Amino acid sequence: MEQVVADLPSGPLDAYRNKASFSWKEMLYFIDGEEILQFKHHVFKSLENDPVFARQPGEDISVEKKRELNFLRVKQLFRYNFLTKEDMMANPWKVVILDDCLGMYDWALAAKYDLNRGMFAGIIVSTGSSRHGKYVKDIEHMETFGCFALTELSHGSNTRAMRTTATYDPSSQEFVINSPDFEAAKFWVGNMGKTATHAVVFAQLYTPDQVCHGLHSFIVPIRDPKTLLALPGVLVGDMGKKLGQNGLDNGFAMFHNVRIPRENLLNRTGDVTPDGQYVTPFKVRIRFGASLGALSGGRIYITRMASVNLKLAVTVAIRFSATRKQFGPSNTEEIPVLEYQLQQWRLIPYVAAAYVLEHFTKTIYMNFIEFQFGQLMKENSDRQAEMGREIHAIGCSSKPLGSWTAQRGIQECREACGGHGYLAMNRLGDLRDDNDPNCTYEGDNNVLLQQTSNYLLSLFHAKLHSNLSVFFLTLYYNMISFSMASVSLAAYMWLISFLLVESQRRLEQQSALGSNEFEARNNSQVYYCRSLAITYIEHCCLQRFHSLTTDQDMPSDLKPVLRKLCALYGLWSLSNHMATLFQGDYMTGRKPAELVQLTILRLCSELKNEAVALVDVLAPTDFILNSPIANADGELYKNLWSTVMQGSQVLERPSWWKEFCSNKPTVGSLRSKL
Amino acid sequence: MEQVVADLPSGPLDAYRNKASFSWKEMLYFIDGEEILQFKHHVFKSLENDPVFARQPGEDISVEKKRELNFLRVKQLFRYNFLTKEDMMANPWKVVILDDCLGMYDWALAAKYDLNRGMFAGIIVSTGSSRHGKYVKDIEHMETFGCFALTELSHGSNTRAMRTTATYDPSSQEFVINSPDFEAAKFWVGNMGKTATHAVVFAQLYTPDQVCHGLHSFIVPIRDPKTLLALPGVLVGDMGKKLGQNGLDNGFAMFHNVRIPRENLLNRTGDVTPDGQYVTPFKVRIRFGASLGALSGGRIYITRMASVNLKLAVTVAIRFSATRKQFGPSNTEEIPVLEYQLQQWRLIPYVAAAYVLEHFTKTIYMNFIEFQFGQLMKENSDRQAEMGREIHAIGCSSKPLGSWTAQRGIQECREACGGHGYLAMNRLGDLRDDNDPNCTYEGDNNVLLQQTSNYLLSLFHAKLHSNLSVFFLTLYYNMISFSMASVSLAAYMWLISFLLVESQRRLEQQSALGSNEFEARNNSQVYYCRSLAITYIEHCCLQRFHSLTTDQDMPSDLKPVLRKLCALYGLWSLSNHMATLFQGDYMTGRKPAELVQLTILRLCSELKNEAVALVDVLAPTDFILNSPIANADGELYKNLWSTVMQGSQVLERPSWWKEFCSNKPTVGSLRSKL
Repeated sequence: MEQVVADLPSGPLDAYRNKASFSWKEMLYFIDGEEILQFKHHVFKSLENDPVFARQPGEDISVEKKRELNFLRVKQLFRYNFLTKEDMMANPWKVVILDDCLGMYDWALAAKYDLNRGMFAGIIVSTGSSRHGKYVKDIEHMETFGCFALTELSHGSNTRAMRTTATYDPSSQEFVINSPDFEAAKFWVGNMGKTATHAVVFAQLYTPDQVCHGLHSFIVPIRDPKTLLALPGVLVGDMGKKLGQNGLDNGFAMFHNVRIPRENLLNRTGDVTPDGQYVTPFKVRIRFGASLGALSGGRIYITRMASVNLKLAVTVAIRFSATRKQFGPSNTEEIPVLEYQLQQWRLIPYVAAAYVLEHFTKTIYMNFIEFQFGQLMKENSDRQAEMGREIHAIGCSSKPLGSWTAQRGIQECREACGGHGYLAMNRLGDLRDDNDPNCTYEGDNNVLLQQTSNYLLSLFHAKLHSNLSVFFLTLYYNMISFSMASVSLAAYMWLISFLLVESQRRLEQQSALGSNEFEARNNSQVYYCRSLAITYIEHCCLQRFHSLTTDQDMPSDLKPVLRKLCALYGLWSLSNHMATLFQGDYMTGRKPAELVQLTILRLCSELKNEAVALVDVLAPTDFILNSPIANADGELYKNLWSTVMQGSQVLERPSWWKEFCSNKPTVGSLRSKL
Repeated sequence: MEQVVADLPSGPLDAYRNKASFSWKEMLYFIDGEEILQFKHHVFKSLENDPVFARQPGEDISVEKKRELNFLRVKQLFRYNFLTKEDMMANPWKVVILDDCLGMYDWALAAKYDLNRGMFAGIIVSTGSSRHGKYVKDIEHMETFGCFALTELSHGSNTRAMRTTATYDPSSQEFVINSPDFEAAKFWVGNMGKTATHAVVFAQLYTPDQVCHGLHSFIVPIRDPKTLLALPGVLVGDMGKKLGQNGLDNGFAMFHNVRIPRENLLNRTGDVTPDGQYVTPFKVRIRFGASLGALSGGRIYITRMASVNLKLAVTVAIRFSATRKQFGPSNTEEIPVLEYQLQQWRLIPYVAAAYVLEHFTKTIYMNFIEFQFGQLMKENSDRQAEMGREIHAIGCSSKPLGSWTAQRGIQECREACGGHGYLAMNRLGDLRDDNDPNCTYEGDNNVLLQQTSNYLLSLFHAKLHSNLSVFFLTLYYNMISFSMASVSLAAYMWLISFLLVESQRRLEQQSALGSNEFEARNNSQVYYCRSLAITYIEHCCLQRFHSLTTDQDMPSDLKPVLRKLCALYGLWSLSNHMATLFQGDYMTGRKPAELVQLTILRLCSELKNEAVALVDVLAPTDFILNSPIANADGELYKNLWSTVMQGSQVLERPSWWKEFCSNKPTVGSLRSKL
């Protein structure tokens, strides 16, 4: 068998690697395990060895071409079929790992593949019935290509306000799909721009009696699979260039009374009989909590995507900082920029965040799988509903935390790499642009945080008014007797309870002032509910990582460094809430805040010699990382120079050189008097 | 005469416009004045009416094509010659306004034009002598095209470490320019990639006796102006794609013993005689402070660039937020997202920052002009040197403050516009990408801040040890008796003095622990010197805006809204330093912090109905703003939809449609056993 974890080439990075207190390979095995490492190695090598996936750092490719290349790569993924259904059942974590691998290569690839095979097929399986099996089958063989069409031009977050209609016509036993006007055009639909042949369209279902039964989803053919030409009545097209992920063809569609068979309604929670009666198949409606939980998969995975982006960015910035030398104690000697306190403080907390988010996303995904398993078993218990609500609250806040941490971290890494970070070939721009929509899709971050604070406040209420025992509130009520070692965890516990009480008070104040509930909620977000949701999820991530680092089974070589990362993440995150800690008298005077600051600086300094080994653990292969300033050999300038020199038309004079050399401008010839 | 300030088209934005407490036209005249408004109008209309400047929002253009278009536009600017030398002398502020106008259109245009006509010609004028006049003349007629080559592949901030050499050969009376290796290649040079025929090259000057006289600058021909082909011995090329500003051709060059005439040395501060003696022309060397000041023009203008970007971004986000409706108090009624507290809190402080930075950059530029005038008059007074040092300290911190505020503000605006903010056509991506290098060039932000804190600490020392009366420290020592109305200004005064004392203490602690000065400085940056520099410049901006709003001549209609903006900016900026205020016991307990928060929210809420009129003042014409979601008519969806529909190949099937329709992949055909 080929070596799964190759040795790293020696070079300038060794100066730091040799100082690390732990073995990066041991850490890698500890985090991923043999099976996953083997799988990642296989995926990475398959892409690297296949010319379809060849690329050049910083290449300039048109949007049209990016969409073509991405499609061809997706097609190739069908051929690789890296994960069969059996593989997925045997180890569901591999589904995430495959996405990680594809995303590290290019998120547009992962997205295009998943929106079709995961989301489109998934929604049919989970909300349709046996009559929709053929669509899933056709997807699997790329006979059709699907997309998920919910958002409209004028509505995103407010899903209830969607205006596309599906009116049942019993005479032909068809639904008539219609967009009342262009503001109700489906918009932002991934895969719809160029390739989708079918869409799951969300529309308001009207029965012949003109009663609206709310939003339902329908399978609507939009392009002829034989020609890729739009079907009659469907105006479908490409939205054009986005800030990033341009390999993915986001599109729009307007429907002009497009007729589809009655059976195309995804009928798990509601159906229409041939003669036009609306019926619900289940007597007991699924519990609200459970259905909330089911929607969380996307947000949990977006948190993961963001954490992957952060891993890539810190790898680039740390390797660069360890090899870029600038200034020094004397005029003759220069030192790596990683030696500077300021550079450490800018970057190393993000390395800690990458480790914390790696662990968090893994554990919460496992919780989600467990929850889904309960759903499959048709478990309809209180516990299942409770779990659904909690997972929903976590997903709604972990997506904001993850995507913002990554977005800020990538920007910091870009700046920390100076001008070279601004060269497209070094990838920090793509990472930033590709991460950015994580803040927006599946719910705007700020809007989602309200879901989390609503959940926490409702628990608070329930606790005040009943005996319901809930995981989280148990912690809350135990707080006074809470005696954990970690300063940060204790402080977070205090913060959450303080903000819970304050948010509740703020809400009550607003109501007392005569605000209705809508206004009261809106006017209690800033400094209260929003901060509550953020501290809750930060605590949650920290708590999980802390459990890991205090686990008995943890290899003793790895403990010290992981504990330092845990402490750093905790204090660094906490330092954003310092004012609140003071405000509530949790802290007073100079000492405690100074201690937090000095400890952060001390941890950064202690982790400075571990940083290169820490990112060696996070880094994919050079081919996948695709950033010449951050190759594993540490030959910063050689790799950068070599990539620059091999760019397109680098040394040629421009094709438009005559525009300079002839027809010289007459200065002021176009000048007019004002 | 054509109407200089056109009325705005009526439409959905009127709902807010009608609620504003002031006339946006009055504000515009107050800020810019008739002459500037006329000039801006003229520039904007010239570009809009000229097909050379035509463009389509969100168009997908290759890097090569961007460089060509940008060159053609620069060439056209020679024809317009918007500002003659006489115009500039009559009103130097117009130089900035012209750059603003070009930059609002596209920063790559402003940069390409300025690097040639401003920076290249400017450095020759200011550091050369009469023998270099012909280069300036050739530049003016586009016979040659210039660039400024300082940075090397392996060195940026540490300018002393540049390794390009210029060795004088008395036998031929030439300098031999040489790059010892590729790590010393000039790198990141704007205009060098495609068009520059000449470069001002910074190199270590060696006389025949092998003595190095330090970094000097030389005019080096690099391409034949008749063919644009590289000259023998010069390896010159294009660095490739950047994150933004891709119309500007940044390039690199290596010199292989390239010979240039002795006279090409820019000899204002040092020259070499024909037989190879190094001579300094002035007996009295120019004072250090004064020469520092002279370098500040670039940084001050970068602060301005950033403020312009922020103005554009808040215009987009506020107009969008005033017309985008989502959710509402009932299921049937939706309200503009600008009505939400959270959206106000995210955006309105950045509107305030845009106003504060607009005023700050104008006044500091005027100070700089005054300083330069002193230089031209060869004034060599203490005051001139003092002023140079202060301007240097301000430029080194205003660039970080401006570029970071803009970078964060643009990101917030992007997110606040949701998915539509992620469409390239709405320009927030370009603004972010084009603003980003402002954090890096002319000195990395974090590195520059050290210059400012060094200055403040040296003043502190001087004050402790002498009677030197200094503008700034006067404020510091008057603090105790300080009784200004504004809470923020007082708090900032306290912050600066607290951080001065603390930074000094930290430095002394480090020295006591045995650190040398280099280490002591490095280890005193985070939480101390860095925060000191930031609070200093925030105070400076706030102080200047406060003076404006309390000016007697200010029109009374405008006072209330400007004072609110001032108060909001002050408190919002201050709220980043809350922990320090608590830490130093400036604040205790719950009330003061709560008051700051509630006041911020109240001001945001009061400014909500002013926000649209406030951005109407900041906004250029629709053609220049180039963002369909933010046209002045407020027809968000019509403009967006219309732009989408007119994109390239929007409704066509992709050229590669057969890749979908034939040659279907055999699932798993490439699957190998692990």
